[in-house]
Amino acid sequence: MAKSPSSKKFNAIVGQSGGPTAVINQSLAGVVEALKGAKGIGRVLGMRHGVNGLTKEPARLFDFKSVSAGQLNKIAGTPSAFLGSSRDKPDAEYCARVLAALERENVRYFFYIGGNDSSDTCRIVSELAQQRGVDLRCFHVPKTVDNDLMMNDHTPGYASAARFNAMAFMADAMDNASLPGIKINVLMGRHAGFLTAAAALARGTGKGSENNGPHLIYLPEVPFDNERFIADVESVYARLGRCQIAVSEGIQDAQGRAVITTLTEGLEKDAHGNIQLSGVGALGDALAELVKSKVKTNGGGGTKKLRVRADTFGYLQRCWPDASPVDAKEARAAGRAAVKAALGGKEMSGSIAIQRASERPYKAKFVTVKLSDVAAKTRHMPAEFIEGHNNVSEKFIRWATPLVGKLPEMARIGEFRGGA
Amino acid sequence: MAKSPSSKKFNAIVGQSGGPTAVINQSLAGVVEALKGAKGIGRVLGMRHGVNGLTKEPARLFDFKSVSAGQLNKIAGTPSAFLGSSRDKPDAEYCARVLAALERENVRYFFYIGGNDSSDTCRIVSELAQQRGVDLRCFHVPKTVDNDLMMNDHTPGYASAARFNAMAFMADAMDNASLPGIKINVLMGRHAGFLTAAAALARGTGKGSENNGPHLIYLPEVPFDNERFIADVESVYARLGRCQIAVSEGIQDAQGRAVITTLTEGLEKDAHGNIQLSGVGALGDALAELVKSKVKTNGGGGTKKLRVRADTFGYLQRCWPDASPVDAKEARAAGRAAVKAALGGKEMSGSIAIQRASERPYKAKFVTVKLSDVAAKTRHMPAEFIEGHNNVSEKFIRWATPLVGKLPEMARIGEFRGGA
Repeated sequence: MAKSPSSKKFNAIVGQSGGPTAVINQSLAGVVEALKGAKGIGRVLGMRHGVNGLTKEPARLFDFKSVSAGQLNKIAGTPSAFLGSSRDKPDAEYCARVLAALERENVRYFFYIGGNDSSDTCRIVSELAQQRGVDLRCFHVPKTVDNDLMMNDHTPGYASAARFNAMAFMADAMDNASLPGIKINVLMGRHAGFLTAAAALARGTGKGSENNGPHLIYLPEVPFDNERFIADVESVYARLGRCQIAVSEGIQDAQGRAVITTLTEGLEKDAHGNIQLSGVGALGDALAELVKSKVKTNGGGGTKKLRVRADTFGYLQRCWPDASPVDAKEARAAGRAAVKAALGGKEMSGSIAIQRASERPYKAKFVTVKLSDVAAKTRHMPAEFIEGHNNVSEKFIRWATPLVGKLPEMARIGEFRGGA
Repeated sequence: MAKSPSSKKFNAIVGQSGGPTAVINQSLAGVVEALKGAKGIGRVLGMRHGVNGLTKEPARLFDFKSVSAGQLNKIAGTPSAFLGSSRDKPDAEYCARVLAALERENVRYFFYIGGNDSSDTCRIVSELAQQRGVDLRCFHVPKTVDNDLMMNDHTPGYASAARFNAMAFMADAMDNASLPGIKINVLMGRHAGFLTAAAALARGTGKGSENNGPHLIYLPEVPFDNERFIADVESVYARLGRCQIAVSEGIQDAQGRAVITTLTEGLEKDAHGNIQLSGVGALGDALAELVKSKVKTNGGGGTKKLRVRADTFGYLQRCWPDASPVDAKEARAAGRAAVKAALGGKEMSGSIAIQRASERPYKAKFVTVKLSDVAAKTRHMPAEFIEGHNNVSEKFIRWATPLVGKLPEMARIGEFRGGA
């Protein structure tokens, strides 16, 4: 590195970190293909399981030398992190070991694809390199299905997960109309409601779309109240004879307590004991139990029991192999933009951010922002995207629609003449 | 009807029943399009919510008169039951009301799309009509994601649900390789293991595919043993550092008790109380808890906690809007075959069954079997499709592969040179 340059060419390294997405490998491919054609770059290396692979002795690395352009496209189209990911949250000591490994490997360009924790890792490594006078450029490429990075209009990975949720709610709403009842679907996004909000895209825009599911949407940004929830469900059910509900896994009450905790306490004497909080099906099951025990319905089924079901969409949201085309393209471009910024020479570090260049037609632009503006911060749904306590706004719909790609069309019986 | 023919034309009616599928509307379209072109057919009617709509006064019907061929294609491509479905299990008195409604509507052709309960409804209506000298032809069109109908090689709906599970396991296995740990996915099919078995298609056939997930498959046909399960997981984890598991929601122990019941009893003192049996996330959560408390691992993560996650794929399996092309085509053809059989005049009733005409190239044929051969019976996975206590056989893979359509390709790092 700076202290002992053994040749004119320096190596570059790229890693993937945090929860994977359907397009994180597009960003990887973008970084690799931009580096492969660049002047002054020696080996293009990948970290196995993020910085964790750099702390091993010997370092766990992958050399992209023998990967053809065709193979790189196959990698790009594969969901989840090709190189392996990591949940490590490195401190200064950890990053010192990372830096030592980078020096040993003659690396001067460091690219890290991930969320806000990953941009923080990037920041620590970069600051440590500067303190020690090591000539290392550190660039962060954004990635998160939660869409919770500051400075970004949206993040690579979000649109594909949003597409999955929109398609799932569309199809599940047809199922719910076939066999009417209450259907609760629990969605990812512990702190930010963007991914839960995307369920609203399932409604479409045609005639009568205001009656299409999801009928109720509960975001982590809006305090959740059990009584109000029950009243909401009763109201929709009375009107339509069914109710499809989108719930964020991170919903909290007005005191900021996770609803999964308060619900299982409240239901202790009914049916549940101490449900483990990390059990991914637990919130859906607890809400279904609440509906079964509290929702009152008049008419409709007569003596029939109210049909209540809950699904938790889980990890399929972030890995389903049908990425949004816009998302795939932007994730690739974000990777290339990071290389461009690193080679441009103006900045020693930075984070690529996607911003909206134009609304109609939709167009994105890629800018470089400071790592400290992104690192370890969380973005939430802006108030203008939220409507009341159980819905999203038209503004959100307009914002999200161009991101998810073409959605399937559904034939709903209400659109046809001849019905009863 | 026979007693008072008021014209030379008679009406036909079609209904959908039981759990919907991604292609049940293809069968509906097949019935409707075949009837529309047929001689001697008057109105083509649909029952709203199956026979339930016929018991209402007035009957809840849909007239297909104004539905164009293009609209019928849109309906065919929409998942879940366009006409609405029903879970009613009619007895003789209920069927008498159904028959009375059919006479009022001048219906002589009755088509019912559904599973084994639906074929039983068809049988009761048909027998009652014969007893009363009513000239009614009753034909059943098969439908079930569980693939548990007798006389059928496979049933419409199964292949699309199998495709979803195969794609989900493929993508989820990449996620599990990114952030290694134990991943449990709970799948539909309470009594028959076909849908859980379909997860095995995710392994693919390339070099090293024997190490691709799912690594363990637990079917309802094979008694489940907690201790053996723990040993299985430990063995896979020791070898690969991760383990992806497919579990049928209907797994039972050697005494025929549902595992969800025995597991929550066994864990009562640990973390769970009385988990409701119908809670869809409960089995996955309980198995994850079992793994966390019992699985011992050596090496690998060192002091790190074993990562254990569970997802329950739920209703998305039966409604995901990306049907298998083979399934869509066969479901449509099954609907048309029912009309052909009904108009052919040889039989007053029957059930269409899909059988395999040829293995290579794959080709299906449609035959008419007796309602009593299908009604209220359940088919299980044949022994030749099962391997050991935690896998499916090569024969199953060969049987299932032509049904699910083209699956995405995944780039796995082990296939490439330059790795570590």
